[in-house]
Parts: sequence; C-alpha cells; structure tokens
Amino acid sequence: MNKRIVLALGGNALGNGLTEQMQAVKNTADTIATLVAEGHDLVITHGNGPQVGMIHQAFEAAAHTSAHSPVLPMSVCVALSQGYIGYDLQNALREALLNRGIVKNVVSLITQVRVDPRDPAFLHPDKPIGSFLAEEEARKLKSMGVLLMEDAGRGWRRVVASPEPLEIIEACAVKTLLEAGQVVITAGGGGIPVVAHDRHLQGANAVIDKDLASAVLAQDINADMLIILTAVEKVAIDFRKPSERWLDTLTPQDALRHIAENQFAPGSMLPKVKAAVAFAESKPGRQALITLLSKAGEGIAGRTGTLIQQ
Amino acid sequence: MNKRIVLALGGNALGNGLTEQMQAVKNTADTIATLVAEGHDLVITHGNGPQVGMIHQAFEAAAHTSAHSPVLPMSVCVALSQGYIGYDLQNALREALLNRGIVKNVVSLITQVRVDPRDPAFLHPDKPIGSFLAEEEARKLKSMGVLLMEDAGRGWRRVVASPEPLEIIEACAVKTLLEAGQVVITAGGGGIPVVAHDRHLQGANAVIDKDLASAVLAQDINADMLIILTAVEKVAIDFRKPSERWLDTLTPQDALRHIAENQFAPGSMLPKVKAAVAFAESKPGRQALITLLSKAGEGIAGRTGTLIQQ
Repeated sequence: MNKRIVLALGGNALGNGLTEQMQAVKNTADTIATLVAEGHDLVITHGNGPQVGMIHQAFEAAAHTSAHSPVLPMSVCVALSQGYIGYDLQNALREALLNRGIVKNVVSLITQVRVDPRDPAFLHPDKPIGSFLAEEEARKLKSMGVLLMEDAGRGWRRVVASPEPLEIIEACAVKTLLEAGQVVITAGGGGIPVVAHDRHLQGANAVIDKDLASAVLAQDINADMLIILTAVEKVAIDFRKPSERWLDTLTPQDALRHIAENQFAPGSMLPKVKAAVAFAESKPGRQALITLLSKAGEGIAGRTGTLIQQ
Repeated sequence: MNKRIVLALGGNALGNGLTEQMQAVKNTADTIATLVAEGHDLVITHGNGPQVGMIHQAFEAAAHTSAHSPVLPMSVCVALSQGYIGYDLQNALREALLNRGIVKNVVSLITQVRVDPRDPAFLHPDKPIGSFLAEEEARKLKSMGVLLMEDAGRGWRRVVASPEPLEIIEACAVKTLLEAGQVVITAGGGGIPVVAHDRHLQGANAVIDKDLASAVLAQDINADMLIILTAVEKVAIDFRKPSERWLDTLTPQDALRHIAENQFAPGSMLPKVKAAVAFAESKPGRQALITLLSKAGEGIAGRTGTLIQQ
C-alpha cells in the first residue's frame, strides 16, 4: 500500500561541512529514491544544526573584518541554510531517481514556521548550533555575551531558543506539489521561525526542532506516516543500561509515561519521541516510525524500527 | 483579461544590504499585490548581485579567520541567496496580499538552471557581483588572483562568468503551483548555474543573468507576458543624446538591429532587450514589456512601457 510520508532526516544524513555534506547527501538521496521507487509519496524535512551555525559564524566573522557585512538574524540564517541544503538535496535526489528511471520533479520550498512569541523557550535558550568550540574560543565568546552551553561532554557550542512550532505557513504549496506527484523538500532546519503580529510575520531569534516541525507538517498535509530518522534502529528504554530494552511498538500513553520517567535524552531522542507522539495522537490510524535511514524501507513494511500509534 | 505573467524584478526592487532590502521589498510587494488583485497569475524572478556578493565575501572573510569556515563555490552562494531573498519576498508579499484581503499562498522555490559547459562566457567572466571596492582593497584582491572589473566609473567589483541559461530544471513545480492559483518566486539570481554530465547536474562557477533566465522560464511555463522591470519607464535609442527617443513598441527585428548598432549598454539594458526579444520571438502573441515596477500595471494595460512583440 502506497503511503503519504513525511521523512525527517537526521543530522548524519547531511554530514558536517561542504565536502562531507555532498557525500552524505548522495547516500541519503539513494535511500530516499528506493522509497519513491516503492510508490510512496514523500515529503522530506531535514535539520540544519551544523549548517546554520556555519552560516551564522561566517557572517559574524565577516562583520568583524568588513563594514559591508551585516550580522544576520538567526531567522535569516535559517533561510540561507534552506537554500544551501535544499539545493544539495534536490540535486542529488533528482539524480538518484533518474538512476532508477524515475522522472519526477524534486523541489525545495523556503518555509516559514509560526511560533508563539510568549513560548517559554525564548527565556531559556538551550538548542546547540554550529561547531564545537575550543575552551579559549568559548571563553572569548562568552565574555562578548554570546550564549554558550557545554554539549554532552563534547565541548562548547552556541545555543539559541527552540520554541514549539505551531503552523507551517507554506503547507498549502507542499500539498499541491505532493498531489501532483512531485517530491518536496520543506521545513528545512525546522523552518524559518516567525511570530505573527496581526498580518505581519516577523523573524524570531530561534531555531525550531525539525522533528516537531515535521509532526506539525505531517498533520497539516494529512500524511499517513511520519518517519523520524536517527542514529539507532529502534527507541530503547533504559538506554545503555543492563536492563536496556528496544521497543518495536509504543502507544502515545506509554511514550508519555517513559518521557515522565526521563527515559529519553533532551536534544536527542526526547524531541523525536515527542514529535512521534504528537502525530500519532492527532488522529486514529496515523503512524510514526523512528528508525535508521537505511532501515526506513523495512520499517514502512513493519519489519523494524519503533512504531508509535494509538 | 487576466494574464499569466513572469515578473522579473530589477536590482532596485530589493535594495542593498539587510535593512534597505527589508524596506525595498515591502514597497515591491505592495506593487506586486496590486497586480495579483487585478487577477493576473504571477511568477516572480529577481536578481541577486549585491546579495550573492555579500554572501561570497562573508564566507571568504570567515575562511581567513576560522578553519571551520569553507570558501563557498558560486553555485552554492546563489543557492543561499535564493533562501535569503526568497524568504523576505514571500514574507512581504503574503502580508501585502492579506492587506488587500487576498488569501493566496506565496512560496519560493530553490531553482537550478542548466548552462552549457562550453559556453564562451566561461572564458570571459564579465558579470560584476557584490559591493564596490576601494582602490586599495581592489589592488589587494587582484594580487590574490581574484577577477575584478571597473564597473561603469563607479569603482571596482568582482566578476564571474555569466553563461546563457538553457533550461529551468524545476519549471514543472512552478507550473503546478501557478495552476493551483499560488504565487511563485523562482529562478532567484538567475538560478543556480549547473552543467549536465549525463544524469548529474554539477554546480558551475557562474552567475546567470536573471532576465535571460526569466525569458527561458516564461517559455517553459507558457506565459503570456514577460515583464522586465528596470530603472526607466521605457527603452530609449540614442539614450542620453540630443536625438534620444523613447520607444512604445519594438519588434524583435528592430530590437536586433538596435542591438547591432550598440544602442544598449552591456550589463544594463542590453540583456533586458535580449531577454525580451527571446521571449517575443518564441511564439506569436507572446509579449515582453520593459518598464518601471511602479508602472507595471499601466504597462500591462498597454498605456506605458516598451512592448516587444512580433
């Protein structure tokens, strides 16, 4: 049975840096093409952590050396990252489809996502972006007032607010293209964060979690399935403990209980499970799958991954 | 009569720099909204000279100060500029339409445009990008091997190759959205230049003229009219001479004769007239209009501008 699927790519699907991204995207495109070949209608979303950080840092560095160069607001950095990653992805996916004899248009949409200006996340920025910084570089930036955080023992990174996505402004275009049989890349990096002031949408200093944005998108376009790709094949409880248990299925109720027990790491599995629950809860029959990119096909067929449904 | 129109915005529609762009885009969006309100189906294209230069320079400056920061190829810079400008334009246009009570989706597409790797333009880079450079800065860059050109007495600028556009890779998506009544922003900055190697599209070190790309797009989507916006209300022959004459209409044949007589400035009116001729010649009935953004409505109604048709 062919499904309408929102496929949320994880960070490893894109790699770090320009050269790594080109190779990673090639492999990613190849796997996505097999899903298209199986007859599914796909909408692709993706993160942008390393890329938006790179863009932000480049403009910051340039502003120090040239009066011509502005420091870009985070919303604008996300917009640039959508162009950067979208181009690479649509280029590689077009080719991977042609290699299978599939002639299908693939296109990336610049996508705004509305958030609430009173979202408490704005008071507690906690989303790491960009590359890891050396101790000395971190100290220098902190003294300049830049918000930094120690990230899981791997070093210092910048942090920005990560408010909850409420609405995909361009969802209508996604639907139109999907219904015309095209493959759409959208809500890149979780979307450009905007807050509504009457009819005006103003860019916000934030980065939206791409899995949560994907769950909103999947509801907006009435998808059958939301696939959240990550670095493990299944969701585990008691992860990395002797009592570790990998889950084949999970109800929203059980997931919420595990969340309350702090079973999932914030900034890692937690937003993925939350996004899966949000979609699965939104309507009976809607399924969310958390698995590896390389296992997505098997996962859709019900043979692996963790399936979250009512 | 409602028309399917490709509207190619000129540089002054976007302004220079971040703050100027936001204001310029607001005015531009307001005028475009009046055309939508009159019932026309619009596809918007735009240049990116200052913006792509700003992006290129920022990454170059950052690469000097940080090992994390890559120097971006020109094709990737164009992709980033499409995100940057597309976001601003679609945000402002959505609002301008809502201010008129029009609920219409507006979306920007990341767009690749195919060029010929054997295009002679690659041997003679002559398209200025980015900001004007001071004499000293220019000397320094030249000594580093960066290609520069003196631009119409206004100072030094970087130059890149500007090959002819042959095909809009994502034209199919433009058509689909247009037929669904949506407003599309596409081929930003003339499109991301790519050359085809079998099924692979490789980014090229170039910037495509946005008016020529718009003419190809207008043919691909079977538009009725191509409007090329510029800083003058009409095309003139003997421009700024005592014998100056402003033209209401122009046939492709007469235009080609004027081109042969060097009536139009390269990098300014020349590509606009060439683009207009290419579209007008492509099929009987197709019209190209060259005028000011503020006169576009009157121009469509046949009351001003220079109309190029067979």
